[in-house]
Amino acid sequence: MNFSDKSNISFIKQKIEDLEKLTDQDKPYTRIVFSEKFYEARSWLENEYQRLGLSVSTDEAGNLIGTLNSKTNTDKVVIIGSHIDTVPSGGRYDGIAGVVAALCVAKHIKENDINLPFNIAVYDYLGEELNDWGISCIGTRGMIGALTPEILSRSNSSGEILRDEINRIGGNSESLTKPLPVIENILACLELHIEQGKVLEQKKIDIGIVRSIPSISRFNVEVNGQAGHSGTILMDQRADALVTSSEIITYVNKLALRLSKESNQHFVSTIGKINVHPNAAAIIPGKVEMTIDLRASSKNSREQYINELEKQIQIMNQIGPCKIKMNNIAFAPYVEMDKELVKLFKISADACGFTNHIMDSGAGHDTAQLSRVAPASMIFVPCKDGLSHCPEEFAEIIDISKGTAVLFKMLEKLARLNRN
Amino acid sequence: MNFSDKSNISFIKQKIEDLEKLTDQDKPYTRIVFSEKFYEARSWLENEYQRLGLSVSTDEAGNLIGTLNSKTNTDKVVIIGSHIDTVPSGGRYDGIAGVVAALCVAKHIKENDINLPFNIAVYDYLGEELNDWGISCIGTRGMIGALTPEILSRSNSSGEILRDEINRIGGNSESLTKPLPVIENILACLELHIEQGKVLEQKKIDIGIVRSIPSISRFNVEVNGQAGHSGTILMDQRADALVTSSEIITYVNKLALRLSKESNQHFVSTIGKINVHPNAAAIIPGKVEMTIDLRASSKNSREQYINELEKQIQIMNQIGPCKIKMNNIAFAPYVEMDKELVKLFKISADACGFTNHIMDSGAGHDTAQLSRVAPASMIFVPCKDGLSHCPEEFAEIIDISKGTAVLFKMLEKLARLNRN
Repeated sequence: MNFSDKSNISFIKQKIEDLEKLTDQDKPYTRIVFSEKFYEARSWLENEYQRLGLSVSTDEAGNLIGTLNSKTNTDKVVIIGSHIDTVPSGGRYDGIAGVVAALCVAKHIKENDINLPFNIAVYDYLGEELNDWGISCIGTRGMIGALTPEILSRSNSSGEILRDEINRIGGNSESLTKPLPVIENILACLELHIEQGKVLEQKKIDIGIVRSIPSISRFNVEVNGQAGHSGTILMDQRADALVTSSEIITYVNKLALRLSKESNQHFVSTIGKINVHPNAAAIIPGKVEMTIDLRASSKNSREQYINELEKQIQIMNQIGPCKIKMNNIAFAPYVEMDKELVKLFKISADACGFTNHIMDSGAGHDTAQLSRVAPASMIFVPCKDGLSHCPEEFAEIIDISKGTAVLFKMLEKLARLNRN
Repeated sequence: MNFSDKSNISFIKQKIEDLEKLTDQDKPYTRIVFSEKFYEARSWLENEYQRLGLSVSTDEAGNLIGTLNSKTNTDKVVIIGSHIDTVPSGGRYDGIAGVVAALCVAKHIKENDINLPFNIAVYDYLGEELNDWGISCIGTRGMIGALTPEILSRSNSSGEILRDEINRIGGNSESLTKPLPVIENILACLELHIEQGKVLEQKKIDIGIVRSIPSISRFNVEVNGQAGHSGTILMDQRADALVTSSEIITYVNKLALRLSKESNQHFVSTIGKINVHPNAAAIIPGKVEMTIDLRASSKNSREQYINELEKQIQIMNQIGPCKIKMNNIAFAPYVEMDKELVKLFKISADACGFTNHIMDSGAGHDTAQLSRVAPASMIFVPCKDGLSHCPEEFAEIIDISKGTAVLFKMLEKLARLNRN
């Protein structure tokens, strides 16, 4: 497979353009899981699978699968997948590039009538991005049996229950108590993704080969003060939940900055979401809810962060006018990618003649979930200025095409190993 | 008029209960100006005017008026008014108590066939509370010719233009370039309001007689950073608009606390409204908008606050990663109530046998606008724990009835002055 093949390049370009049109019009690029636009994109993808001659199915976890069976009768499968959902006002490449690359690999196999000793399954993993239910990677957590009854019964802000949404899209939430049967047959889970950082761009490297994905923790913080008239309650009589929240935001930022310097490993923490009640200019905020996002490759740094933050909140509860509660709502552990697959990705990238670099991921990915039960690894392609989760997110089609060629080369290497 | 008259007490109670039902069901007590529930409350009030035999009209500024003409042919009018709109999740008494008291006064005049040497006009002043157009006191600003073309052409977050909303409710925005003709004929503008503070409750005083209303300034603050993936952008490479905004919130709170101590006059400042973009847990906030609310009885303290805040923002713009813009969107100057009316209110309260106290208001009121062009004054009745602009807001009916009796006594005093 030639990365500079014009038909592949125009295929990748066209599919990305098709998907970028399926966005909330007033807030590009937004295609939240289970939204109207997400359903439209799922129909589009089903149609793409059919046009490429893949058989279409939805698994119990709501993942949309296009399967290309081997001519050899086998249950063994190599999964190539990513996701087509986005964060609000997100980008055109995060997840999408990986699904389109997988489609392109399938197209290449089909057009050239290549027989592989395993089935190929293209996956759109359901809802990779963090959603209103406080959970990410719905589809891959479902595949590995990690969607607990507590998670499945969560309601979002519109009162919709996650369980019902999974069933509505064609899943079967009752079957998610243990890993799905497909797990037994997986030879490898592969994913192409934009880097979402600046390493490849700055080092001018074609392919990043991911060896680890950091732990991700999320915490809800609730700050309860006392709402009141902004004109009449004197300054020293207030319990302003936004003022207290601001102190927490400042503290979290300073703490993360310090620990990221002290640790040599990946460490970031963010408060990206905040809801203020009642959020009106003439009312002292009575209540604030925030979500803390924490990514750490080092367990020690993670534990130190949580300890220090909990202590700080304890102090603030003792001396401050507001009452603060913090609780952990999600955790995905630090994982290492399958060492054999990492090696094989390096061999494949070398064989394609692309510069490459073994690296740690900063972001979480579906592959992190799958790597807990099956051999899995992923590659990164460069993106502009490290920007992601924002409308400015950009990757060159030629770079995605290079990554696609590595995915296909990887299948050839896996075929050789599995024929022997 | 006897404050303990059972018919008056049950009238006041019933009308407050009627209005508290007209709220957004999921967010009591919410009746935002121009909302569906606001229109319902306006219909209810029109019906109340008619039942009491008042003639109904809407003026050019969208105020809903019930007029009781004097048997003596005269253009002179005493206005008794307040407002029936609320802040989001506001209370059942702020504004409402004043409109209901005015209705009760009109009922008493009508039932007892009392002739006064001036007309009585009960006003529901349009949209007293700060709204999504960044302006408060729409109706009274309109009456005095203070709704500038800039204000009238503002859009709210749904793209609705203020001018159109005023016209839709029966006003005539084209006539608002100068004070309305009624201003010439006003003998007095009177208002009863809950105190929204703790002074009367703590001092066990029946009636507060307001001698001044502080200046109110509002500023929009826009903080521009760079949105990005919460997992991949390193801590020292961020331009997190929420972290910068938190520093501003903390600074504003400390500055206001200090200046309120240094000044012996009323001084409070609040950031009650904040919008974060895109407000998602896995995205570094790229942009934040906030509204600063400032109330000051001292011009010096006000100017010092603005100077220090502007300097701080300048420093933050020089050394910080985000760009901050602040601009003034509303200003209502400090005003003193009409001295003769204040005296007359004191005489009236004494005549009724109620304890009373001359005081400064902490909140802004429609009466502040009207006092710029006409004789105006207002009284406060106690409320529980000083709470207001929140669902817990509470006032005793008997206290509102005492205030109502003072309003009527005031009319008798004014009648005596105007007959002579």
